[in-house]
Amino acid sequence: MRLLPNLELIKTIARPSPAKIVLLVIDGLGGLPDPKTGKTELETANTPNLDQLATKAICGLIDPVSPGITPGSAPGHLALFGYDPLTFTIGRGVLEAIGIDFSLESGDVAARGNLCTVDEAGLVTDRRAGRISTDKCTELCQLLDGLVIDKAKILVRPVKEHRFIVVFRGEGLAPDISDSDPQQTGVAPRTITALSPQAGRTASIASQFIARAKVILAEYYPANMVLLRGFSQRPQFPTMGEVYKLKPAAIAGYPMYRGLAKLVGMEVLETGTSIEDEFATLKRNYANYDFLFLHIKGTDSAGEDGDFDRKVRIIEQVDNALSQLMSLEPDVLVVTGDHSTPALLKGHSWHPVPILLYSKWCRPDRVSQFSESACVSGGLGRFPATQVMLLAMANALKLTKFGA
Amino acid sequence: MRLLPNLELIKTIARPSPAKIVLLVIDGLGGLPDPKTGKTELETANTPNLDQLATKAICGLIDPVSPGITPGSAPGHLALFGYDPLTFTIGRGVLEAIGIDFSLESGDVAARGNLCTVDEAGLVTDRRAGRISTDKCTELCQLLDGLVIDKAKILVRPVKEHRFIVVFRGEGLAPDISDSDPQQTGVAPRTITALSPQAGRTASIASQFIARAKVILAEYYPANMVLLRGFSQRPQFPTMGEVYKLKPAAIAGYPMYRGLAKLVGMEVLETGTSIEDEFATLKRNYANYDFLFLHIKGTDSAGEDGDFDRKVRIIEQVDNALSQLMSLEPDVLVVTGDHSTPALLKGHSWHPVPILLYSKWCRPDRVSQFSESACVSGGLGRFPATQVMLLAMANALKLTKFGA
Repeated sequence: MRLLPNLELIKTIARPSPAKIVLLVIDGLGGLPDPKTGKTELETANTPNLDQLATKAICGLIDPVSPGITPGSAPGHLALFGYDPLTFTIGRGVLEAIGIDFSLESGDVAARGNLCTVDEAGLVTDRRAGRISTDKCTELCQLLDGLVIDKAKILVRPVKEHRFIVVFRGEGLAPDISDSDPQQTGVAPRTITALSPQAGRTASIASQFIARAKVILAEYYPANMVLLRGFSQRPQFPTMGEVYKLKPAAIAGYPMYRGLAKLVGMEVLETGTSIEDEFATLKRNYANYDFLFLHIKGTDSAGEDGDFDRKVRIIEQVDNALSQLMSLEPDVLVVTGDHSTPALLKGHSWHPVPILLYSKWCRPDRVSQFSESACVSGGLGRFPATQVMLLAMANALKLTKFGA
Repeated sequence: MRLLPNLELIKTIARPSPAKIVLLVIDGLGGLPDPKTGKTELETANTPNLDQLATKAICGLIDPVSPGITPGSAPGHLALFGYDPLTFTIGRGVLEAIGIDFSLESGDVAARGNLCTVDEAGLVTDRRAGRISTDKCTELCQLLDGLVIDKAKILVRPVKEHRFIVVFRGEGLAPDISDSDPQQTGVAPRTITALSPQAGRTASIASQFIARAKVILAEYYPANMVLLRGFSQRPQFPTMGEVYKLKPAAIAGYPMYRGLAKLVGMEVLETGTSIEDEFATLKRNYANYDFLFLHIKGTDSAGEDGDFDRKVRIIEQVDNALSQLMSLEPDVLVVTGDHSTPALLKGHSWHPVPILLYSKWCRPDRVSQFSESACVSGGLGRFPATQVMLLAMANALKLTKFGA
């Protein structure tokens, strides 16, 4: 059975127009009720602007990947941009590089690395080297950075704690090589092997890098070895310009979301990281784009920390900032999240995410509060997040008829 | 866009845990309203336990195969186990064998048989031989059972009335041969032909069996001939253990459901057939499994018989038994059906089936009664039955994040 979106089909029916679409993504928006009050974070927050908007809008619930599936940030956002996350996948190495704003060049092969501990026999005893500090990781990455092996330059950058990235840069590299990370302790790191004939040299370079790293790190117990996984190259996705005939811009304080926006061809705007900064950036650039993606990170972080009250406060700040967005009178405004992050679960979850779509042509429903429980009865029903862009485009009158 | 579940993907994100899932399938649960009262069987039944559970749970409606499609027992159950019934198909012969608890060996080729009537010219005059009694069928099957043709042993077992199964057992048999059943009267049985080069011998053996049967049955008018169809071998499905990392058990009084459970790798528990027996079996074995499928047959049988009141009473019995199940405090409890069997239609139907999912993390909705009409407003919305297992696994916290 075929489900839209199909990007090739959309290309044939999308048409440019001056109408403007704003996609406001409140990261990890969906929640679970506090057992004491029976209300979620969104239901607890005082959100007069969102509720007023809900009255004029059409509401519903979206599943980022599928009912029951807890999405990472990348699949959650790709779905919202209309890119099926089961088809448009991003390698782990590339994702880590994006997450630290590392500018991958075409042809680069990136891998995610762990500093780890091995014993005298070479067996892994701790895959995370006791979760060493980011400072220590930074120091050790500097020791490994800048090697040149078989004409490939090797770039090493710290991420957080024991995590780092390694990027192999040079001619003729291929990403299809196996991981060295055995994903368990008590065994030796795996030998990296080529998974295709053209990847032989890359496998050899990666293996040599690991051998060199072992020597360099020998005296830095517990971080005396590295494990690499997720070798990958920057994927070539069709751009939102090609697919939707849009001129899209992204406003996001965190590198991961800027990187994801770049992968689908958005222009990434310079912005401060506070909510007020981001909304001001949107206002300043509003005239120059017809699609503006604004990303709010704090809700997800608060959810991950299990801080119900902080998540409530950040939702209230977003609600407060919304009035200046409304004064711009966007033709279509979508407010939703990339997944749920209930404070009670202290992490991403599978629960569907409330969505609100406002436009002159939205056919309003009877929902008068923007909340998980009210959206259950919304006119949009429950649907895949990958269809959000179709709805936004339709409401902006940017999609022509399918078939005659 | 791809629709989950994809079993290969689930394998990569499923993780074992002690959390327990109970799937209570009330066969043919969904119904249609009695015109006198406007209430379905489920809505007529007094179900305090289900209603109390609905208050704490999240509800919705499932489509076993697709809106508008009336499923048989096999697709209805495969969907609930997360196996797309359009992909995971079971041949008719195998299904009939499963339905009578016949233990198919690997390599066996099974076919569904009809005892039928042919005239002197050999044309079929009644495809069901006047629906002879099961006793008569049993007697005639004994005459046909045990033949050996070209080294293949032929096993014949009665099913019900004119229906029987024939199983060809031996080396090198293949199921891809055509039916002899012409599915109409006034014509001769069809010649069985091989549909692949390697099936030639099997086609020949099946043809010889039919010729022998015609001779043996000559004097048993109206059951003087056989028609065979649905030649098939037991399919090799991935097991629920492989896919979900579960240790699953099935409690079912009827052979068909035990057989379906076996096909997906469940352990089939010894049980009595009454509702009380089945719940007692669940309680007795609860500690040893992390997934328990309990099947209630009576609701479907009552629906098939057009007995509205009996279906109501059986639902009330299940509701009554539910309290002992709740005292086990399963982490996830799903109550639903494999399809609807409205007493008014006296058969399976296409109507979506109410579903209730209870867990600590279910995000309860406002539904306070477990019924077709209340579930329309449930937080789960209306969704494919194949996604039930994903939701159950997610609520048991047995699925890790997809993508980073």
